[in-house]
Amino acid sequence: MSVYLHDIPLTDARQRLNQALIDAGMEGLLGEEQIPLDERASGRVLSRPVWAKSSSPHYHGAAMDGFAVRSSTTEGAIPTAPLTLSYEDQALYLDTGDPLPPWADAVIPIENVEPVDATGSPSPDPRKPNAIRIRAAVTPWSHVRTMGEDMVATQLVLPQGQVIRPVDLGAIAGSGHAEVWVARRPRVAILPTGSELVEIGRPVQAGEIIEYNSLMLAAQVNAWGGEARRFPIVRDDFDRIRQQVLAAAQESDLILLNAGSSAGSEDFSARVVASLGKLLVHGVAVRPGHPVILGMLEVPVELTNKSGDQPRSLPIIGVPGYPVSAALTGEIFVEPLLARWLGRRPREMSSIQAILTRKITSPAGDDDFVRVAVGKVGERTLAAPLSRGAGVLSSLVRADGLAILPRGSQGEPAGAQVTVLLYRSLTEIERTIFAIGSHDLTLDLLAQFLEEHDRRLVSANVGSLGGLVALRRKEAHLAGSHLLDPESGEYNLSYIQQYLPETPVKLVALVGREQGLIVKPCNPKNIHDLGDLAQPGITFVNRQRGAGTRVLLDYHLDLKGIAKNSINGYNQEEFTHLAVAAAVASGRVDCGLGIAAAAQALRLDFIPLFEERYDLVIPDEYYRARLLEPLLVVITDRDFKRKIAELPGYDTSQTGEVVAEMN
Amino acid sequence: MSVYLHDIPLTDARQRLNQALIDAGMEGLLGEEQIPLDERASGRVLSRPVWAKSSSPHYHGAAMDGFAVRSSTTEGAIPTAPLTLSYEDQALYLDTGDPLPPWADAVIPIENVEPVDATGSPSPDPRKPNAIRIRAAVTPWSHVRTMGEDMVATQLVLPQGQVIRPVDLGAIAGSGHAEVWVARRPRVAILPTGSELVEIGRPVQAGEIIEYNSLMLAAQVNAWGGEARRFPIVRDDFDRIRQQVLAAAQESDLILLNAGSSAGSEDFSARVVASLGKLLVHGVAVRPGHPVILGMLEVPVELTNKSGDQPRSLPIIGVPGYPVSAALTGEIFVEPLLARWLGRRPREMSSIQAILTRKITSPAGDDDFVRVAVGKVGERTLAAPLSRGAGVLSSLVRADGLAILPRGSQGEPAGAQVTVLLYRSLTEIERTIFAIGSHDLTLDLLAQFLEEHDRRLVSANVGSLGGLVALRRKEAHLAGSHLLDPESGEYNLSYIQQYLPETPVKLVALVGREQGLIVKPCNPKNIHDLGDLAQPGITFVNRQRGAGTRVLLDYHLDLKGIAKNSINGYNQEEFTHLAVAAAVASGRVDCGLGIAAAAQALRLDFIPLFEERYDLVIPDEYYRARLLEPLLVVITDRDFKRKIAELPGYDTSQTGEVVAEMN
Repeated sequence: MSVYLHDIPLTDARQRLNQALIDAGMEGLLGEEQIPLDERASGRVLSRPVWAKSSSPHYHGAAMDGFAVRSSTTEGAIPTAPLTLSYEDQALYLDTGDPLPPWADAVIPIENVEPVDATGSPSPDPRKPNAIRIRAAVTPWSHVRTMGEDMVATQLVLPQGQVIRPVDLGAIAGSGHAEVWVARRPRVAILPTGSELVEIGRPVQAGEIIEYNSLMLAAQVNAWGGEARRFPIVRDDFDRIRQQVLAAAQESDLILLNAGSSAGSEDFSARVVASLGKLLVHGVAVRPGHPVILGMLEVPVELTNKSGDQPRSLPIIGVPGYPVSAALTGEIFVEPLLARWLGRRPREMSSIQAILTRKITSPAGDDDFVRVAVGKVGERTLAAPLSRGAGVLSSLVRADGLAILPRGSQGEPAGAQVTVLLYRSLTEIERTIFAIGSHDLTLDLLAQFLEEHDRRLVSANVGSLGGLVALRRKEAHLAGSHLLDPESGEYNLSYIQQYLPETPVKLVALVGREQGLIVKPCNPKNIHDLGDLAQPGITFVNRQRGAGTRVLLDYHLDLKGIAKNSINGYNQEEFTHLAVAAAVASGRVDCGLGIAAAAQALRLDFIPLFEERYDLVIPDEYYRARLLEPLLVVITDRDFKRKIAELPGYDTSQTGEVVAEMN
Repeated sequence: MSVYLHDIPLTDARQRLNQALIDAGMEGLLGEEQIPLDERASGRVLSRPVWAKSSSPHYHGAAMDGFAVRSSTTEGAIPTAPLTLSYEDQALYLDTGDPLPPWADAVIPIENVEPVDATGSPSPDPRKPNAIRIRAAVTPWSHVRTMGEDMVATQLVLPQGQVIRPVDLGAIAGSGHAEVWVARRPRVAILPTGSELVEIGRPVQAGEIIEYNSLMLAAQVNAWGGEARRFPIVRDDFDRIRQQVLAAAQESDLILLNAGSSAGSEDFSARVVASLGKLLVHGVAVRPGHPVILGMLEVPVELTNKSGDQPRSLPIIGVPGYPVSAALTGEIFVEPLLARWLGRRPREMSSIQAILTRKITSPAGDDDFVRVAVGKVGERTLAAPLSRGAGVLSSLVRADGLAILPRGSQGEPAGAQVTVLLYRSLTEIERTIFAIGSHDLTLDLLAQFLEEHDRRLVSANVGSLGGLVALRRKEAHLAGSHLLDPESGEYNLSYIQQYLPETPVKLVALVGREQGLIVKPCNPKNIHDLGDLAQPGITFVNRQRGAGTRVLLDYHLDLKGIAKNSINGYNQEEFTHLAVAAAVASGRVDCGLGIAAAAQALRLDFIPLFEERYDLVIPDEYYRARLLEPLLVVITDRDFKRKIAELPGYDTSQTGEVVAEMN
């Protein structure tokens, strides 16, 4: 039996849950309530159609300032033979919006009549004349806003299932309602479990993890129209978890049982679900998110609420412990369930076709949701895969969308077209500057400044050479690069010549910066220059192949005649300066080569060795594009330079200068 | 002076407000506050960048279940010459997530080792052996989640100005924060004024208007991140309005002074603003929305809050009284102002290019925002202009977007391409079925049923002939039609032949229905057949040219030899059955020709005269398209037919039948 519960395809898993909901009578609206029509009704979901109770306008009213008349009495009036209508019985002054008297069926705008006094002279108060003279007949109902012109009583104003928007509130009120029927908000209990979990704000020890999944899930549930309630952390103990689930079931429509991310946590969840009802699914073939559990609890009668409105059965979802899996479980299982219970359509993410910048492999049996950054370079929309680890929170935050690799696909090569569900609007994508290349901390600063200039800077760190390759493939608008040419001592020029021989580019200096050895505070191993790296007992961490910092290291090792294989850790690679610093700070290694700012950020010591120039390589095609205009402004901005200068080891004397125009 | 305040172009008006805000020191963030990191932080705007306080992971942890080892002690292990590592000092069992002991730098997955007991036999408890045997060396840091792998302390987690999403909450917590700095929510006072206004829920008399603008504006403000406070209605009285404005200014950052829609109301607003500060703009050249007022209040010092955090100056926006203008004023003035005060980007509506289905004229001096319904027919995206009246609430609710006719444009012909800002996602637009043609109440019912089948039905009522013309122009997926051919007594066939001679279409019966005379309750004028329409003292309202009901009327008038000009009201036109019924109900006319359901809806009497067939004309091209599949399912659905049968005067015996295939 159990074997059929494991690693079930996504559509089958959903189908099982649906069937269980139908069996429990929970496949539709959970209930409805009538609420007063005030601003708090915004965002609720209509549980009944709104039919107009009154018409709008609800009376015949003047559409302009003027005189109400009966159209038949105006017949025959012509410029040369005006008619005179006596005031109050044949003509009555109305402001716009005033109701027509019962005898009238038209309004003549005040500018088209001649109000006269008893003697036939122009009336001193044109709005209270003795009579009016008119020189043209009017047709019935001219200049009248007739009753029901906008909405007729009994007409459909809004369909059931509509999520109420601000303007809808106006239409509901305007059609005569003071209350509105809306779907009851589903109550969702969120139960974090796991002995390694620690509440937000408490100090954490090694092996402990801050519990924030319940926070993400609660915010998701609330945003989707549910009512989330977070329970305290329960440690991995079958009886305690079971007890908490039973307690939560009393006043919930759905339970999210969030396992810890440590091994074994998810098994507790499955056993608890099985012991309190039916385990429907244990593991879904979806990536990330595999260990999702779906079940239906059967709450014993003696535990249900006396009032009898408590369902005997309720669904429970075992949410995996890794944050990326947890968030995706919310999106693919919880959101559609809430939509159904609220009677609204499930949320629709817009989708686009985009070109993969890197190969993705995918197990053929899984529906794979790959987090990607999305940008438009030239005419092509690109999707750059982010880290795929289920524990990598930063990839969740940086994702612009999800590339879909459906069940059956074993992956896609670089350059393949994939469907991407977007978290951002197309407009946002279109104002995105894609920077791929070397990493420098000033890029974060640049991103902050660009936000104020209507641009979003997305940067992927693949090293300087990787950036030039990306430009050659037209996968980036610009690349950060600091590649030293050992022959000439120049930066970047010869590499551009080699990698982009046919692309006209501008080389723009961003910063001068110090590179040096990042070592532990107080430099306990007494490291002073590259020569020390080859000493026994010294461990080192390198940058990846193609990184400018590695090119710099190799250049100086060659100069000094130091063999690479004499350095303990030469083959260990990190992708950013901060990662190198983190390796030192955590005790993994004794030192690494990097920039001063990274050392300072983690309160490490820094031994300056070299100065180098970090440039932006920008193809002319994009240099002249409107998209990049604000960037060219920002990098010459005095405030921007001042901010850079606050970081240690930076020189801004050339910042913003075009140092070369090539090809 | 005053003349320069009037009808100012939109960009100039915004510029004046901006300058006034800069002068008052209110051009940026109003303030910030540190709030606890819980689900209520979702949707708030970061007032400072979030830098990681701790790394994630914050320790080196096992990435798999297995044994922690020091990689150097594994050197030399090969399949034929295994190494044995003693338990606890050279190897230690770890669950996934457990921290590495200080001496270890790698993990060997449990499946790759042989746990042994003191005698060298397999250990009874593989997780607590006496030693482990390994047959391969491991590299440093393999199967370890190293500290900072996801985020390194001091790294930028989220930029300032970010609207916090659920996943962001996870990243903020995961990087070591328990609180977060966010922008203070701007406090917006909303003051409805106008002697004709009545609160929601109170009975209204002719000439009175339900006050719902403050409700719409409050919901807008809250949705955009502000904190709205609605004030009670003030009647048109200079001193009272002035007093209310002063009172509201005490605890607000912005005042929205919503004038009544009656003439003169807006003048009060302008005078009040001028008396309490500076009137910056009185009238903006934008349509709808002309009478917008922008001003800066100067609150006397003795009235400001003692604590000193109350600004001396604050902006005030005079919002026009018509609901469509009020809502648009919110979108074009209030939203960007709130965005600036919150330090976030203004809301971005995605925009598309669409083809106008009707001509639009526009004053050259105005920025014109035309509400449109949007659908995709074949490969073309179409924008169908809705009613342009500033009082037509239903157009606001039905709008899928705003077509932009910028200042300088005098309008666009039908077929022109225009830019449309979308209220809906492209996905929603793509599941929209565009029906243009005759009106029948069952179309509302059809729309309701289709909602459950992932389709949106948008119908425009232009009469049967108008529908066929729309099909010819490829501006609709289908048309409702009930055109009687006087020669043959057949419905629709000859008209399709004439208007769509080259388009293969299916003619699908929707309903049979009764047409008859809609008269006042108890039929006070004793009307019984078409002959009575020519009686003196009887007033009639007709349907527009091209409407099937008008064709039917003309056919029977001809048969009976009744002259059209003998009917009082033959030239008065309404566009729907309900509008005809409303004209009768409101006393405007004595009778009209229409369907029984419309009479019943407004509790009118109905004199059945004819039976007719109402069909859907569907070009084959769309009949076979996936978009229309659900529609073909619904119209043969038993529940759907039963719902129709509940309406009076309908016959469903042919519903869903393909009655003809043509061309």
